[in-house]
Amino acid sequence: MTLPLALSIGDPAGIGPELAAAAWDMRKAEHLPAFFVVGSARVIEEAARRRGLNVPVCAVKAPDEVAGCFDQGLPVLDIGDVDYTPGAPCDAGATLALNALAAATGLVRSGAAAALVTGPIAKSRLARVGFHYPGQTEYVAQACGILPENAVMMLAGPNLRVVPITVHVALRDVPDLLTNELIRNRAAITASALTRDFGIANPRLAVAGLNPHAGEDGRMGHEDADIVAPAVALLQAAGINAFGPLPPDTMFHAEARAAYDAAICMYHDQALIPMKALDFDAGVNVTLGLPIIRTSPDHGTAFGIAGTGTARVGPTVAALRMAGECAMRRMNP
Amino acid sequence: MTLPLALSIGDPAGIGPELAAAAWDMRKAEHLPAFFVVGSARVIEEAARRRGLNVPVCAVKAPDEVAGCFDQGLPVLDIGDVDYTPGAPCDAGATLALNALAAATGLVRSGAAAALVTGPIAKSRLARVGFHYPGQTEYVAQACGILPENAVMMLAGPNLRVVPITVHVALRDVPDLLTNELIRNRAAITASALTRDFGIANPRLAVAGLNPHAGEDGRMGHEDADIVAPAVALLQAAGINAFGPLPPDTMFHAEARAAYDAAICMYHDQALIPMKALDFDAGVNVTLGLPIIRTSPDHGTAFGIAGTGTARVGPTVAALRMAGECAMRRMNP
Repeated sequence: MTLPLALSIGDPAGIGPELAAAAWDMRKAEHLPAFFVVGSARVIEEAARRRGLNVPVCAVKAPDEVAGCFDQGLPVLDIGDVDYTPGAPCDAGATLALNALAAATGLVRSGAAAALVTGPIAKSRLARVGFHYPGQTEYVAQACGILPENAVMMLAGPNLRVVPITVHVALRDVPDLLTNELIRNRAAITASALTRDFGIANPRLAVAGLNPHAGEDGRMGHEDADIVAPAVALLQAAGINAFGPLPPDTMFHAEARAAYDAAICMYHDQALIPMKALDFDAGVNVTLGLPIIRTSPDHGTAFGIAGTGTARVGPTVAALRMAGECAMRRMNP
Repeated sequence: MTLPLALSIGDPAGIGPELAAAAWDMRKAEHLPAFFVVGSARVIEEAARRRGLNVPVCAVKAPDEVAGCFDQGLPVLDIGDVDYTPGAPCDAGATLALNALAAATGLVRSGAAAALVTGPIAKSRLARVGFHYPGQTEYVAQACGILPENAVMMLAGPNLRVVPITVHVALRDVPDLLTNELIRNRAAITASALTRDFGIANPRLAVAGLNPHAGEDGRMGHEDADIVAPAVALLQAAGINAFGPLPPDTMFHAEARAAYDAAICMYHDQALIPMKALDFDAGVNVTLGLPIIRTSPDHGTAFGIAGTGTARVGPTVAALRMAGECAMRRMNP
C-alpha cells in the first residue's frame, strides 16, 4: 500500500489552512497522491468555508486511515484546537504550528507517512513559543539527526532547479562565506539527491560564478578563479558531472538550461531571481540530504491576504506532487 | 524625409558583419527602418556570402543616398578595407571597427543619420589600436560631450527593461559603490529617457533592494534601509514615480513586471539574470541620457562562431527596430 503524505498545517493565521483545503479540492484535476493535514480540524473547516470551498474534513487518528477516506474528505490528524483568525497570528496558533511540524516530522521519520510537506510558518512568531531554528529546514534536519550544513535547500520548478550555496545573509557577506568545501559539499549532496529522489542517473550541475562574467579572468573579482573553479575541478575529479564557473547572466535562458539538471548558485538572489521569474507559481522548496523526503511550497504565511481567498494554491499542489514523486522513487529505486 | 539609422560594423572578425547583412535580409518581414552600415563593403559582401545570403551591397557616399537604394541592397558607407577573416581578429580590423564607430557617431551627432546602432567590438582588441574607454558607451558619451556617469545603460526586451546601477565590478565591491546620489542620478535619467524616447508619460520605476528580501528590516544587510530607501524617497519627492526597495527575487515574474516600466537594479547580474532568462534573444542595450539615440545588440563579437552562420540575428533586428522607434518619438514628441 502506498503511504500518504503528511502536510503540516503551518501557522493557522496564515494561508496554510486554506491552501491545504484548496489542494484537496483539486486532488483529482491535479492527480495528487493521498495526503493528510497535521493540525486542527476546526481551522481547516473554517478556512475552507471562508474560501468558499465545499471540503468535508475527515478526522483520522493515524495515517493508515487516510487511504480509506481521502476520496470523501480531507483527512486531518487533529492535534489541537485554536480559533481561526486569518491575518491575526497569536501564540496559541504558533504553538499549534510548531506541534504540527513536530508531529508530522515524527510520522514521516517513523515510516507511517511517505513524505513531509510543511505549510508556511512565521519564524518570528514561532520563536516566541520556543522555536530556536533559522527555519523549518534546520528543525527537520536536527529531528533527522543531520547537521544543518548537510541539509541543502533546492528550489525546483518546471523549468529550473537551483541550489543557493549561501542563503539568508547580506550580499556584502557572501564573498567571504564561500569556500571550496562549502561548494563541494552542497554540490555533492545535490548530485546524490538528484539521482536518488529525482531519478537522474548522472546529474549535470551548472555551477554559477560569483562575479559578473564569472570574473572575466580576474578583471571583476578573484573568487571565481580562486574558489569556485577549484571546487568544480575537485567535484569533477570525484566523478560528479559539474561544470563552471559560468557567467551567471547567460546560464538561465531556455537553451542554456537544457544543458544541466540543477544550477549551483553562489547567493540567494542569483538562485531565486531566475527561479521566480520563470516559475513563480510553481516553485517547490525541497530539502536535500535528509533521510526523509521534505518539500514545502515556496512562500510564507502571507498574513496580509490570509482568509481573502486570493492565495494561490499552485505552490502547495506542486509541493505535494513533488513529495509524492520523490517518495515513490525512493521506495522503488 | 525620415533619416536612416547608422550601424557601425563592429569588429570585422566578429559576428557584426554577417548580422548586418542578415538583418537587411529580414528588413521586410521585420518591418525595419532604413539603415546603412558604416564599415567595409568588401567585408559585408563576403560575410553575407559566407552566411549563404543573397545580399547585394549598395555603396553610398552619404546617408542621404540610403533611402534611394535601401530596397535594392544593403547600403554601406565604405571607410576602409580589410580582409574578412572571421574568428581571427587583427589590428587592422580593430582600426576599422574604431573608425566605423567614430564615423557613425559623427553622422548621428551631425544630424545626418537618425540614430546610432553599434555593432559588437572586443575592447581588448580596440585597446591595442588606441581605444582607451571601458566600452563603446563611454566613447559615445564623450563624443557627445556627456560625462560617463550620466550615460546610463538600459537593457530592454519585450518583457522587461532593467538599469544596473553598478555594472562591471566585482560583486564584493558593489555594496560600497552604491550611494544615494548614484541611484538617484541613474533613476532620474532613466525616467526622463522613458518619457522622451519610449513615450511613457509617467514612468514607473521599481527599485530593487541590494540584499535578499531587501534586507528584511536590517536582518540581512543595512544598505537597503540606509541607502536605497532614502534614494527612493528623494526620487518620489522630486515627482518621479519610483518605489522600493523591493525584494529582488519576487519582482521579475509577469504579474510583478506589469506594475513597472523599468527595474532599477543594484548590480550587473541582478539586472541581467532576469533580463536574459526572459528575453535572451531580443535584449537591446540602450544608452540613456545622450543627446542622440544609441542602441546595440546585447552580445559580444563571438569570435568563436563568427562565419559559421549560427549567430542569431534577433538582437540586431531588435536593436535596429528600437533605435528607429526611439528616433521617431524624439523627432515627433
